[in-house]
Amino acid sequence: MIGSDKSSIHDLALFGGARLFDTPRPIGQLAAPDVEDYLALVREAFKSGQLSAHGPLEQQLEAELSVYHGVRHCIALANAGLGLMMLVKHFAQERQGEVIMPAFTFRGLPHFVQWAGQMPRFCDVDRHSHTLDPVSAKRAINDRTTSIMSVCNFNSPGDIDGLCQLADEHNLPLIFDSVYAVGCTYRGKKLGGFGAAEVYSLHATKLLNGFEGGYIATDNDELADILRRLRDGTSNGTSLPEPALNARLNELHAAMGLLSLRRIDTIIAGNRKRFDSYLRSIGRVPSLSLVTYPDDTREESNYEMAVLDIDKSFPLSRNQLMNLVRAEGLAISAYYSPALHLSEHCPIGYKVEPLPTTECLAGRYLQLPVGELVSTSDIDQIGELLGFVYEHGSAISERLCEQGIK
Amino acid sequence: MIGSDKSSIHDLALFGGARLFDTPRPIGQLAAPDVEDYLALVREAFKSGQLSAHGPLEQQLEAELSVYHGVRHCIALANAGLGLMMLVKHFAQERQGEVIMPAFTFRGLPHFVQWAGQMPRFCDVDRHSHTLDPVSAKRAINDRTTSIMSVCNFNSPGDIDGLCQLADEHNLPLIFDSVYAVGCTYRGKKLGGFGAAEVYSLHATKLLNGFEGGYIATDNDELADILRRLRDGTSNGTSLPEPALNARLNELHAAMGLLSLRRIDTIIAGNRKRFDSYLRSIGRVPSLSLVTYPDDTREESNYEMAVLDIDKSFPLSRNQLMNLVRAEGLAISAYYSPALHLSEHCPIGYKVEPLPTTECLAGRYLQLPVGELVSTSDIDQIGELLGFVYEHGSAISERLCEQGIK
Repeated sequence: MIGSDKSSIHDLALFGGARLFDTPRPIGQLAAPDVEDYLALVREAFKSGQLSAHGPLEQQLEAELSVYHGVRHCIALANAGLGLMMLVKHFAQERQGEVIMPAFTFRGLPHFVQWAGQMPRFCDVDRHSHTLDPVSAKRAINDRTTSIMSVCNFNSPGDIDGLCQLADEHNLPLIFDSVYAVGCTYRGKKLGGFGAAEVYSLHATKLLNGFEGGYIATDNDELADILRRLRDGTSNGTSLPEPALNARLNELHAAMGLLSLRRIDTIIAGNRKRFDSYLRSIGRVPSLSLVTYPDDTREESNYEMAVLDIDKSFPLSRNQLMNLVRAEGLAISAYYSPALHLSEHCPIGYKVEPLPTTECLAGRYLQLPVGELVSTSDIDQIGELLGFVYEHGSAISERLCEQGIK
Repeated sequence: MIGSDKSSIHDLALFGGARLFDTPRPIGQLAAPDVEDYLALVREAFKSGQLSAHGPLEQQLEAELSVYHGVRHCIALANAGLGLMMLVKHFAQERQGEVIMPAFTFRGLPHFVQWAGQMPRFCDVDRHSHTLDPVSAKRAINDRTTSIMSVCNFNSPGDIDGLCQLADEHNLPLIFDSVYAVGCTYRGKKLGGFGAAEVYSLHATKLLNGFEGGYIATDNDELADILRRLRDGTSNGTSLPEPALNARLNELHAAMGLLSLRRIDTIIAGNRKRFDSYLRSIGRVPSLSLVTYPDDTREESNYEMAVLDIDKSFPLSRNQLMNLVRAEGLAISAYYSPALHLSEHCPIGYKVEPLPTTECLAGRYLQLPVGELVSTSDIDQIGELLGFVYEHGSAISERLCEQGIK
């Protein structure tokens, strides 16, 4: 018997049994402060009367984020995607070119790059860090390249030194999408000030929950000034170098973001505890493991995600396993899959070249439930469920194939 | 003696006297529901747990807006600018062309058009409605034109029939920026379903206050489906016709927007009462008048703005008057000024042609304080202040010139 009451494969939800979880367990952080603390801040904001345009809470959030990341500027935004659009467009300087980026990453990125008038140029990633491989990036640089965009993943910020060196050599701006790396370090230094700028998210599913929102971190005073003006859509009587946006973060979001930032250590500690539970509970299941965090006492991680690595020896395909456990109430999803250059997010007419590491990684992983809505007891049950699936693997696989799930 | 205590020009705030208003009176609507009603809705939203992705309040808002406008679809957005960007880009169909638009309008529009990969093509406006003149628009249409964007102003939606006919003749999509026309009618029919789509704002300064936000209204099912997918950034496994955005409206905004929509009649009635006060109080001042609303019982208006028309016979220049009354605590600003083709919002390298009506109108108007934070007593005082300025016009003008304000 596993979970609450599964003793045979007929007890699996996909085969007609009861679901393991009544309400779906999410794969995003969804960490929230006490609702009354939040409402109290909003009540104050209503009193101040300045709710949407660079209000006191937004200013406070920008200041506290700057201290947290150890950077001169954090520019609060309506969302991270708009930040990436602004940076890519700014660095393109009216040119229509290409942005070097990994193919193993968030599906929104090629869209944002195109909004900025550029084409993505998909490159391969490093097999261990899953981040933009400087060798692949170097090979893709050409006269049309306008910037390099690297993504710092939950498990590693990647070869930042290698990418900085490459960007310097070619005199190209280097942008980091650090959405999954709040609180993480590179060579002992907290992320925030690397490259020309780093972009972060305040979406509810991320480590810092501002409901939605994002921010750009940079140490460059001039860039920060331009970005603020582009964000606000106000020119103050002088021409802007490129089209502006309306991308401010209002007080409702800033209030939530502030409360989130002030309990970030608690959030990370909870993540760590849950990840340790996963290590124990998944560790008992053959052919399954977790993508790990840096095993180096000088580095800090945020333990934001739990990503399951499915070995070929596991009796079910990833797709079979995903369908099976989704039916049990785990809102899991394939991690960074399909690879962007082979997906519907690849621009029409893009000349696709093989990216072996990306293609291999894109077939391996599943994102497991995480965050404050998932208990360690849930995680124990998830481990037991996966163990049960492994044990009865061939019977389950056969039954799934009969249902057309391969 | 006017206002509280002004008996000589030395009592004017710019010349060292006390300000007429302690706190600046705004030019935006800033209509808010009872804060506790709002917080109660947010508390419920927290309980539902679905705060950012197409939650129940957002769905309810879309439904109620559709009923209000009498259209099949209202697509809620993070802001109106993103809606314009999506529409312009969609209708350009991968082409890089020009968008026909008025030069006498909101400074953000040419920026949004450029984000959509298009160049603005500035046209002249009608002298009475202040909206895109079909004759000027017709003259500007060429092979590169990808869409026509007209702006419905607070005082008139413009020649919608004429523009529809022009768009039909040239097989061009027609977009209306109806941000200032919530609740207004054209030939007795409420705005919402005209052209290919209309774009509205939920910014706090607009009639419907969702803090921020916006929506697209359309009767076109296919277009609505595409816009929702572009807004959400989710492809559901099929390619999107163009790059997607992250532009959803979350529950914090939807809650506010709903409460606002449910009291729209009260908001408009308050606007009307204040506008009537302005008519009385400004009516006593020679050389000053207000831009009026349609004098036609079949048409409805929202009385959202009070725009002062300054005749050449007024003893102060507009700039002088603006500086003088700003110092008294009126957060007034020049209306749609400078004309876009002559402003810093005109794209670099744009071939500027004269647009006589636009250039004339752009020099005439001042936006006066409006909305629920302005009382009818405030408006009486504003009228008295303007009368006082008229009476002592030559002395004030002389003094301002001495201060270098012309």
